[in-house]
Amino acid sequence: MIQDRLTRLRDRMSEKGIDFYMIPTSDFHGSEYVDDYFKVREYFSGFTGSNGTLVVGHNMAGLWTDGRYFIQAENELEGSGIELFRMMEEGVPDIPDFLGENMKSGQTLGFDGRTVSCKEGKELEQKLKSMDIRIFYEEDMAGDLWKERPLLPNHQVIVLPEEISGQSMEEKLLAVREKMKASGALYFTLSKLDDLMWLMNIRGNDVACNPVALSYSFLTPEELYLFIQPQEVTKEFTEYALKNHIIIKDYKNIAEFLNGYDYKGKVLLDKGNINYALYKILSDKAECVFESNPTEALKAVKNKTELSRMEEVYLKDSAAVIKFICWLKKNVGKEKITELTAAEHLDGLRREIQGFLDLSFPTISAYKENAAMMHYEALPESAKEIKAEGMLLVDSGGQYMGGTTDVTRTIALGEINPEIKKHFTKVAVGMLQLTQARFLYGCTGRNLDILARQPLWDIGIDYKCGTGHGIGYILNVHEGPQSIRWRFAKGAAEAIIEEGMVISNEPGVYIEGSHGIRTENVIVAKKGEKNADGQFMFFDTLTFVPIDKEAIDTTCMQPIDVERLNRYHEQVYLRTEGLLTAQEREWLKEATSPLRI
Amino acid sequence: MIQDRLTRLRDRMSEKGIDFYMIPTSDFHGSEYVDDYFKVREYFSGFTGSNGTLVVGHNMAGLWTDGRYFIQAENELEGSGIELFRMMEEGVPDIPDFLGENMKSGQTLGFDGRTVSCKEGKELEQKLKSMDIRIFYEEDMAGDLWKERPLLPNHQVIVLPEEISGQSMEEKLLAVREKMKASGALYFTLSKLDDLMWLMNIRGNDVACNPVALSYSFLTPEELYLFIQPQEVTKEFTEYALKNHIIIKDYKNIAEFLNGYDYKGKVLLDKGNINYALYKILSDKAECVFESNPTEALKAVKNKTELSRMEEVYLKDSAAVIKFICWLKKNVGKEKITELTAAEHLDGLRREIQGFLDLSFPTISAYKENAAMMHYEALPESAKEIKAEGMLLVDSGGQYMGGTTDVTRTIALGEINPEIKKHFTKVAVGMLQLTQARFLYGCTGRNLDILARQPLWDIGIDYKCGTGHGIGYILNVHEGPQSIRWRFAKGAAEAIIEEGMVISNEPGVYIEGSHGIRTENVIVAKKGEKNADGQFMFFDTLTFVPIDKEAIDTTCMQPIDVERLNRYHEQVYLRTEGLLTAQEREWLKEATSPLRI
Repeated sequence: MIQDRLTRLRDRMSEKGIDFYMIPTSDFHGSEYVDDYFKVREYFSGFTGSNGTLVVGHNMAGLWTDGRYFIQAENELEGSGIELFRMMEEGVPDIPDFLGENMKSGQTLGFDGRTVSCKEGKELEQKLKSMDIRIFYEEDMAGDLWKERPLLPNHQVIVLPEEISGQSMEEKLLAVREKMKASGALYFTLSKLDDLMWLMNIRGNDVACNPVALSYSFLTPEELYLFIQPQEVTKEFTEYALKNHIIIKDYKNIAEFLNGYDYKGKVLLDKGNINYALYKILSDKAECVFESNPTEALKAVKNKTELSRMEEVYLKDSAAVIKFICWLKKNVGKEKITELTAAEHLDGLRREIQGFLDLSFPTISAYKENAAMMHYEALPESAKEIKAEGMLLVDSGGQYMGGTTDVTRTIALGEINPEIKKHFTKVAVGMLQLTQARFLYGCTGRNLDILARQPLWDIGIDYKCGTGHGIGYILNVHEGPQSIRWRFAKGAAEAIIEEGMVISNEPGVYIEGSHGIRTENVIVAKKGEKNADGQFMFFDTLTFVPIDKEAIDTTCMQPIDVERLNRYHEQVYLRTEGLLTAQEREWLKEATSPLRI
Repeated sequence: MIQDRLTRLRDRMSEKGIDFYMIPTSDFHGSEYVDDYFKVREYFSGFTGSNGTLVVGHNMAGLWTDGRYFIQAENELEGSGIELFRMMEEGVPDIPDFLGENMKSGQTLGFDGRTVSCKEGKELEQKLKSMDIRIFYEEDMAGDLWKERPLLPNHQVIVLPEEISGQSMEEKLLAVREKMKASGALYFTLSKLDDLMWLMNIRGNDVACNPVALSYSFLTPEELYLFIQPQEVTKEFTEYALKNHIIIKDYKNIAEFLNGYDYKGKVLLDKGNINYALYKILSDKAECVFESNPTEALKAVKNKTELSRMEEVYLKDSAAVIKFICWLKKNVGKEKITELTAAEHLDGLRREIQGFLDLSFPTISAYKENAAMMHYEALPESAKEIKAEGMLLVDSGGQYMGGTTDVTRTIALGEINPEIKKHFTKVAVGMLQLTQARFLYGCTGRNLDILARQPLWDIGIDYKCGTGHGIGYILNVHEGPQSIRWRFAKGAAEAIIEEGMVISNEPGVYIEGSHGIRTENVIVAKKGEKNADGQFMFFDTLTFVPIDKEAIDTTCMQPIDVERLNRYHEQVYLRTEGLLTAQEREWLKEATSPLRI
């Protein structure tokens, strides 16, 4: 079946004079998750994992995916003739390198320019330019061959009232237009969905786990054009649009519109967050100013309303996780629980919370050595059964009308050996040490990262990821520009930590084949004392879930570490006990009782 | 007298058609200290401080200097008609701004282009270009008017034997030429004196506290030209030059040489470390590659010989400081000691050390509130008398045939109040915390700075400077490229901390009008464990001088902080006791005895 599909694709490629065709896994906005409509790569390869790019030549087909999916991809690709390229393994070329080696002068590379970011497209251009290779990006050639392709998702948008958004669209527009002006741009093309939702105070439901609507916007000094599917526009939204002078256009006409617009000045666009097809139009028709979307930094600083709603939502979400841990500890070994059914139990607890919209990402439930894989995904056929031993790592979150949550706890289900206890304790110490940071305004995540990492570095262990990422408000669970990490990609912008930024704090230990530990709270930056030395900053905590004392070894802690843990646990109990049953409360009382120094 | 001199200068300016003339305090190499020959600004202003720039117009004369010298400058400028510009005070323009406001289109600004760095010169160019102002930089117009000007310093150079340098000039040249090649440069003009001394394995004595010879060098793929005053060339050096194919030229002919050279490729030069006059020649005659001097990073990584000699020298230097502290504690209140005589006593102890060449910078000896000024300079007329109360901050170092040292201790001379004790303790905790850092290779000083600063930030205090700077080997006490600080100037390069880099570690507290504390050790980066997570790094300590327990409050410390201090003190005693008298040893025994947790 896959071979038939590939044959049809190759025939089409021949017609169009295309030598290699690339199918990434992306919507037109670079979203973290994609709807079924965008699963063209799955249709042509049979591989169902969430990350992968298919490259089809006339004599080859290859699928690039990451370590999470090597085994699954091997199984799913069997018999298809598609070669598996294991990303990041030694000797395995990345796609630009592969194309550079396998394409010949005068040949043509094809892809749907809407599913490739401007940045990636330009990198390919750069690589292939000198080889005289043409790029054909104007058509969704593969997608057109997909019989019974699902429709584009087109759920109705909702308008956030100001008691939820905390700031009117008018005020937000004013701030964005000031930034446009400062950049010397007359226009601004925004296609990053969460930024767009933030700006317009609307939410959608077109991307799993991200409450966003497929849309584009184009700002001029006076006008705001919104490109959205007509089915998504409700009566409420039409009225809102009228009141806010939003000019509604059809989603499918964005390219035509930008192509035909009469530009009288520069256009601001964000290289990493606009697709290659739109970039080509804009750079052809107008002078471009390449900058981060001005919405990004504005969105990252949460306003008072957002923060107070998040505080409330995080307590409810924390209570759900507490209920889950209590349930798991009581039932493990007594009934059959797998990684997947445990996740389902937790997801169910979240669904009961008032204002629940969706999960903020698929729950990661990883038992024992599976937890050593940072992005482990339990699959129905291989999910591990959870027994009364070892540890379960659960990383999860929800979307609520009032905030987006993200929390990780690693739960001891039996006796934990001293080595693992030590690792667990160091992770907790680092997490609390970063939480307690007092720092001068002007610090970026690079300055602070070592506070979380140092207890692990001290024992010769590192975690191969950042310590923290920004978190949206009823939006994406990963957002920028802030980030806590010790290294940044070359040329990457580092954001100063501003009051009102919400950030995850998630050090961990990942020992391949043995165990994985991650303890993640979400914290929010606040202004502290201001004196002659400057403006001091500190973090408040939003997450209140006990850190498993059964995996703590106080001999690996300084008195201040124990104090911090005890103080945190005291708050966990005080803040969440009212949301629990008597039985859960009793359990929590014990789980948060102070450790002795 | 000053007015006569200024009149002569103005006459000369009129002859040459110059409207404003600027006289900075610099030699031709941007050295940190300057010889008497270069004190043209002092000659024309009467101001004797170490930092200041004179600007003379036909109707005004102004002197810019920093906070250390405001009072002194006021006194010394009295009656001269020269206006004092207090740098960094609110409402006081800097020189480019002042010139921008006071010069008119078509006018000419003059200065000796050799005493202004390329970077500063280009900034002035940038500022004045649009105003159609000419810059005349080709003559030392003011210096020529100085009657009885001292001669250029011209001390004989010495050649370091390989048992001192640890690496032959040939090997160093090879490494530098590789870097030139990598930068696409055929030539390299090096005028930073310490880099030049390092490259050639020679030392001079033309700059106070810096054992360097006034010189330039010009490298081609095959040749090395050295421009140096003939008086500095010894028979030993002539032989060494012959053996190493060094082409010796006269120092005064560098401009002529670079002007007449037949360039067949690009020239590498370091914008921040070449003077404006040479830059103008090079950019006129050849294509320039602007990069840090390739010698800088090579010089910063000390080789085994250098490190083992430094270890030895640091012990002797530490012993001198221990002797000093012991002497001070025993004699304070019994005989008259001032900030200056205390410094002289310490300097005398250093002079007795075998291999002593010079101080590495003028000893800072600051009593009580004077210590709150980071760069305080005790002057004969105003040096404070030291009594048996308060604290004395002493920051000092030596140049030895075997290393350059730098150490600061703040010494309690009586009962210390709890607030100051707390500050002192937090400084010590931060210094030891940074010393104990284990970190992955790839970290820069920005990642680590918070380890020293956090105990102070925790109590709402900051010090307005970096935590650490690189230290030369029988060279400048301040060198790059490494640096430990939490912020870098925009666009400043951050150096990864490499094995063999020697760095100061000097957190402090500076409370204006009250007290100042600085505790400074010198540490050296080493490779530690290498495992699947990467190459871990750590620091070894070179400085072994007790940290005053009389100013320590263990209630502000965690047990690990006390342990670290005790372990350090144990090493101080073990390593230095053999270098002390019986009486000093007895004192040190007590000064390093363990504190109880």
